[in-house]
Amino acid sequence: MKILVVNSNITPSVTDRIGAAARAVASPGTDIEAVTAPFGLPLIVTRADWLVAGPATLAALQARCGTYDAAVIACFGDPGLDAAKELIEVPVLGISEAAFHAAAMLGRRFGVVSFTAALRPMFEECLAHHGLTARCTGFRMGPAFAGDPGKVAEERLELLAGLCAESVEQDGAEAVILAGGPLAGIAPLLQPRVAVPLVDGTQAAVRLAEAMAGLVPRSPRPRRPRTLTGFPPEVASAYAG
Amino acid sequence: MKILVVNSNITPSVTDRIGAAARAVASPGTDIEAVTAPFGLPLIVTRADWLVAGPATLAALQARCGTYDAAVIACFGDPGLDAAKELIEVPVLGISEAAFHAAAMLGRRFGVVSFTAALRPMFEECLAHHGLTARCTGFRMGPAFAGDPGKVAEERLELLAGLCAESVEQDGAEAVILAGGPLAGIAPLLQPRVAVPLVDGTQAAVRLAEAMAGLVPRSPRPRRPRTLTGFPPEVASAYAG
Amino acid sequence: MKILVVNSNITPSVTDRIGAAARAVASPGTDIEAVTAPFGLPLIVTRADWLVAGPATLAALQARCGTYDAAVIACFGDPGLDAAKELIEVPVLGISEAAFHAAAMLGRRFGVVSFTAALRPMFEECLAHHGLTARCTGFRMGPAFAGDPGKVAEERLELLAGLCAESVEQDGAEAVILAGGPLAGIAPLLQPRVAVPLVDGTQAAVRLAEAMAGLVPRSPRPRRPRTLTGFPPEVASAYAG
Amino acid sequence: MKILVVNSNITPSVTDRIGAAARAVASPGTDIEAVTAPFGLPLIVTRADWLVAGPATLAALQARCGTYDAAVIACFGDPGLDAAKELIEVPVLGISEAAFHAAAMLGRRFGVVSFTAALRPMFEECLAHHGLTARCTGFRMGPAFAGDPGKVAEERLELLAGLCAESVEQDGAEAVILAGGPLAGIAPLLQPRVAVPLVDGTQAAVRLAEAMAGLVPRSPRPRRPRTLTGFPPEVASAYAG
Amino acid sequence: MKILVVNSNITPSVTDRIGAAARAVASPGTDIEAVTAPFGLPLIVTRADWLVAGPATLAALQARCGTYDAAVIACFGDPGLDAAKELIEVPVLGISEAAFHAAAMLGRRFGVVSFTAALRPMFEECLAHHGLTARCTGFRMGPAFAGDPGKVAEERLELLAGLCAESVEQDGAEAVILAGGPLAGIAPLLQPRVAVPLVDGTQAAVRLAEAMAGLVPRSPRPRRPRTLTGFPPEVASAYAG
Amino acid sequence: MKILVVNSNITPSVTDRIGAAARAVASPGTDIEAVTAPFGLPLIVTRADWLVAGPATLAALQARCGTYDAAVIACFGDPGLDAAKELIEVPVLGISEAAFHAAAMLGRRFGVVSFTAALRPMFEECLAHHGLTARCTGFRMGPAFAGDPGKVAEERLELLAGLCAESVEQDGAEAVILAGGPLAGIAPLLQPRVAVPLVDGTQAAVRLAEAMAGLVPRSPRPRRPRTLTGFPPEVASAYAG
Repeated sequence: MKILVVNSNITPSVTDRIGAAARAVASPGTDIEAVTAPFGLPLIVTRADWLVAGPATLAALQARCGTYDAAVIACFGDPGLDAAKELIEVPVLGISEAAFHAAAMLGRRFGVVSFTAALRPMFEECLAHHGLTARCTGFRMGPAFAGDPGKVAEERLELLAGLCAESVEQDGAEAVILAGGPLAGIAPLLQPRVAVPLVDGTQAAVRLAEAMAGLVPRSPRPRRPRTLTGFPPEVASAYAG
Repeated sequence: MKILVVNSNITPSVTDRIGAAARAVASPGTDIEAVTAPFGLPLIVTRADWLVAGPATLAALQARCGTYDAAVIACFGDPGLDAAKELIEVPVLGISEAAFHAAAMLGRRFGVVSFTAALRPMFEECLAHHGLTARCTGFRMGPAFAGDPGKVAEERLELLAGLCAESVEQDGAEAVILAGGPLAGIAPLLQPRVAVPLVDGTQAAVRLAEAMAGLVPRSPRPRRPRTLTGFPPEVASAYAG
Repeated sequence: MKILVVNSNITPSVTDRIGAAARAVASPGTDIEAVTAPFGLPLIVTRADWLVAGPATLAALQARCGTYDAAVIACFGDPGLDAAKELIEVPVLGISEAAFHAAAMLGRRFGVVSFTAALRPMFEECLAHHGLTARCTGFRMGPAFAGDPGKVAEERLELLAGLCAESVEQDGAEAVILAGGPLAGIAPLLQPRVAVPLVDGTQAAVRLAEAMAGLVPRSPRPRRPRTLTGFPPEVASAYAG
Repeated sequence: MKILVVNSNITPSVTDRIGAAARAVASPGTDIEAVTAPFGLPLIVTRADWLVAGPATLAALQARCGTYDAAVIACFGDPGLDAAKELIEVPVLGISEAAFHAAAMLGRRFGVVSFTAALRPMFEECLAHHGLTARCTGFRMGPAFAGDPGKVAEERLELLAGLCAESVEQDGAEAVILAGGPLAGIAPLLQPRVAVPLVDGTQAAVRLAEAMAGLVPRSPRPRRPRTLTGFPPEVASAYAG
Repeated sequence: MKILVVNSNITPSVTDRIGAAARAVASPGTDIEAVTAPFGLPLIVTRADWLVAGPATLAALQARCGTYDAAVIACFGDPGLDAAKELIEVPVLGISEAAFHAAAMLGRRFGVVSFTAALRPMFEECLAHHGLTARCTGFRMGPAFAGDPGKVAEERLELLAGLCAESVEQDGAEAVILAGGPLAGIAPLLQPRVAVPLVDGTQAAVRLAEAMAGLVPRSPRPRRPRTLTGFPPEVASAYAG
Repeated sequence: MKILVVNSNITPSVTDRIGAAARAVASPGTDIEAVTAPFGLPLIVTRADWLVAGPATLAALQARCGTYDAAVIACFGDPGLDAAKELIEVPVLGISEAAFHAAAMLGRRFGVVSFTAALRPMFEECLAHHGLTARCTGFRMGPAFAGDPGKVAEERLELLAGLCAESVEQDGAEAVILAGGPLAGIAPLLQPRVAVPLVDGTQAAVRLAEAMAGLVPRSPRPRRPRTLTGFPPEVASAYAG
């Protein structure tokens, strides 16, 4: 089985990190191909970023079309997810979608922890979009962060351990999602200090994509060919039928 | 005051019809400029269409940036709305957003009527996104429609009158939204046969955009310049700072 | 166009302040008439107060009936609003209703700030009644206040600026409603210190009333004349048909 | 123990019927006093009616103040309920409030049946106000009714039996509320034909009022005396402290 | 009238305390029989405990079947409640169910106070199951408690008074539920220090059970006899028809 | 990897059918062991049945404890699920839980189809318990069924195909769950006639159990040994520590 993992931004070092996290949990026999969005922005933070990351993600999915059994959109907020589910013949999962569903199956109620409160509105919205707000005990997030995202996991490790403890002890979380791209891969560092399962979105998405890939037949959605202008050819090809 | 009204698809005849509907309700002293998306698709129907209509709509908003006091995204589903609210310094409203808020202010509970059930999932999702699901009495929609969208309003006028009556009499709607692009402008034809106010999204959006334009100062959102690749220059300019 | 603005309590100095706030945002060509409830209580605070403020507000609306194009009930909690929407032929908006809808159109999620926690239950209830609870990031309110309501805005300005900052930074509010009668008109003082739009209920209501006035035809609701006893003649006349 | 039952309209024959229904379920040792609102309207149907019925109900409660251990507001929609809970020292229950709570305790999910769809919006709103929407399987109501309300129960008995059956068999209701004043007292006629408990609002309210009366101490709410103008003396006295 | 009160754990001293609390509020003429679960666990804390407490509670209800007019399951979390409502011909109420409904009738919004945050998830879940989440102002709970449950009420009395005050003053609670078995019976100690009614679940349940007992006819649910293996005979007899 | 699949009733032929359905979708290298509950009832239909099926399911899980990597509770309604998640060191999934999550990942909104309306209340409750009500387009169910459950899938195949079509065309479902034990395994028969993916709970659960098994470390929950009386030894052993 092959899973395509798409980094929705254009920074290859992030793609490498995502690919490593994905391979760490893939089943024997599963091949992971991690790709970088062919255009777009170096980092996806705001709703405006999310808007352009959608077609960029679709371009990456479309470019490899037919070569994978399931795909993962590895960007919190799941840009392009609903369109991809409509256009791509195999299962496509977002890492926030996967984190919410996996956490809900691992604990009756789950908390969300991240390093900065700036991400909270987007996470809340994303959680509401996936319909699982009632399963969430709430958000525990650190203060504004102006440093290097690549180092935040290490710099704020103590803070994160504390936020996880609050989520478990005060809010009653029975699983905790570590949310936000810069926290990918740090679950193993924190898990020994947290009494409940920690969920990494990318890793949850890979395992759930394997599950979905085997479950339903590829069902080509009815589609009428149309001409799309103004976008790179990979995007236009998704609409060409 | 000037209101920019953006048709999110690339069909100029639709822009003309939208512009006429907008001018019919604009206040004295309000100038309406109706523009067509500079690229994209001829018609926006699916979630996949909505994905690419977002950047296309943003391009149109950005191309006239600084020349208008408020803007309306005249495409049901409000493509690009959240990003536009973030990037554009003046109020931007979507026609579904406006229809829901206006209907809620005109009646305690409102119904949604359209010519085909195919649009229901998207309308429900859009309603949920705007948080007004509890104010809605439900959807009344006709069967699948395979004809010319430009003629559906006339061909299904009797059907629509019947659906409005059901919405009012059986569901208890106190205002009814006529949803879907092809129904724009037909409210005056139906209103004499319906006991409660009928809401046209484009017209509601123009009036509410006028209201919002005067209410808050232009507050340039904090923004860091970034290079966006793969999109036409109008889109990239919105991210360039 | 003429907008009637009703102060639901019987204190004329409050009416003057409300009228000034209304005129400050009215469009050119809009005439504001601010009137005082003809009977009732000097201040509306509790649910019991709200009960009697309803017929008092209706009396004021009915006394000027036929002379205005839209009306605003300028009392947080919107006493008499649902009945007025039923009985009055032109659009009637409440200031809390207007604040919630305007804030929702200005920001994806809005906060509510007020000077005392004593008002929280009523605001929460009012928000739920208008169906927009999911759009709200929460309430930030000061401790109990026993001083002169006319001076609270000035005395607690620093406190309010701090609460607005918490609402924006910790809760993620993208617009903030300044709630409660005594805060009317202070938005301009606070706006320079707050990073997102501040919403004043009275001013939002005036702008939205202008918008609604032009949008739908006056539709006289079907009514059967009835004799109402025990109320002043202005109220009884609303039921006399 | 004495329970005051207030008919919120001014029609004494309705008071008689309500009193009889109340006495039929009162416990031994409970004295029922049924009173008519001292002013107001002969029938409460619309939201506008509900507005004036509130102070009229409060007047009746206040006129007997100190002579009863609990009170029931016997008008669907519960006019004046929230204010009465605030002003009256003993428990006050509305018949819709009581019907919803009793039905929820008798069955996991309850249906609401009434003779005309015209009442649906108000019942839905009332249900939402009491927060029990999620416990309700939905409404089953007959077509518009233009006849004599006093005879509707008999004329539409077959219809009602059918609606109850639909509520149980198709919606899965495990208890059914017979809603609307004109259906008071007909539960015994229908019960033999319905497989689940039928709930009569007035009777549920009497039993629950007995329960609440013994449960908590009379706790005089803190109150500051105020002068209320424009209302009959019974109402004003409630605010006089 | 006779009310059976079932202690779902096997500790007789707890049964004695529950019985005393029940008798303190029972109406004249009501006989309270308090019984201990015939098997199970000495204390019910977790969801796993709740699982086995359900059949144990049913066994106690079934053992006295036919001798009581209504029953109360006196264990927070209401183990076995939904099954008992299905199998037992007379009304059965849980103490958390009763606390939520009583509090909702006593105040527009109610708070929940308990001595340890460890109970929060279960209470939240139970509240959601009964559908009254929207009526609750939130939970105020103390830190983890490792001492003797029998002494926690006394040891943490000051803490509890403070939590009640926060619930009323900061959250706006108009009634407060004292939740958790070890707090049964302490309402009278705290009530003088709290400005709103305090609700004890066991006592609320007894009063509401009296109310329900008189309201509906015993309606033997349709049942087909079945052989249940692996459970003590009292449980099996409930399925034997 | 080994997955234990528990049939919560005591009918071995049902276990065989469940085992076959599970093996049909298990990944290469996954071993399925299907077991029958060691005691209980031959069929689980009502809430009362569900109560006793919980400990019976736990007994089956506990009897094989330590021999499997994940487990599936193969009974719609998921008896014992919350307790099993608490007591068992490896992931345990219910088939309704799995069906809801899988359907939500396969389509933006999913419908639920079953052969008889009698099951609706339980499915709705179960859906609400898992928090995914907002993702569901509604239930489409046939009339009461009194025949042989083992033959209902064949006898009502046409009916089911029609219900699926209604769910897709009228309700807008993008995935459909075939709910209820007797429909297990019929998805392949119906899939060619349905335009969206059909979800079989048992099969979804097996695939998701594989996914969860690899995702988190076995984390022995803190547990204090306790003596449980009145249950068979397998159940008691789960509490013995």
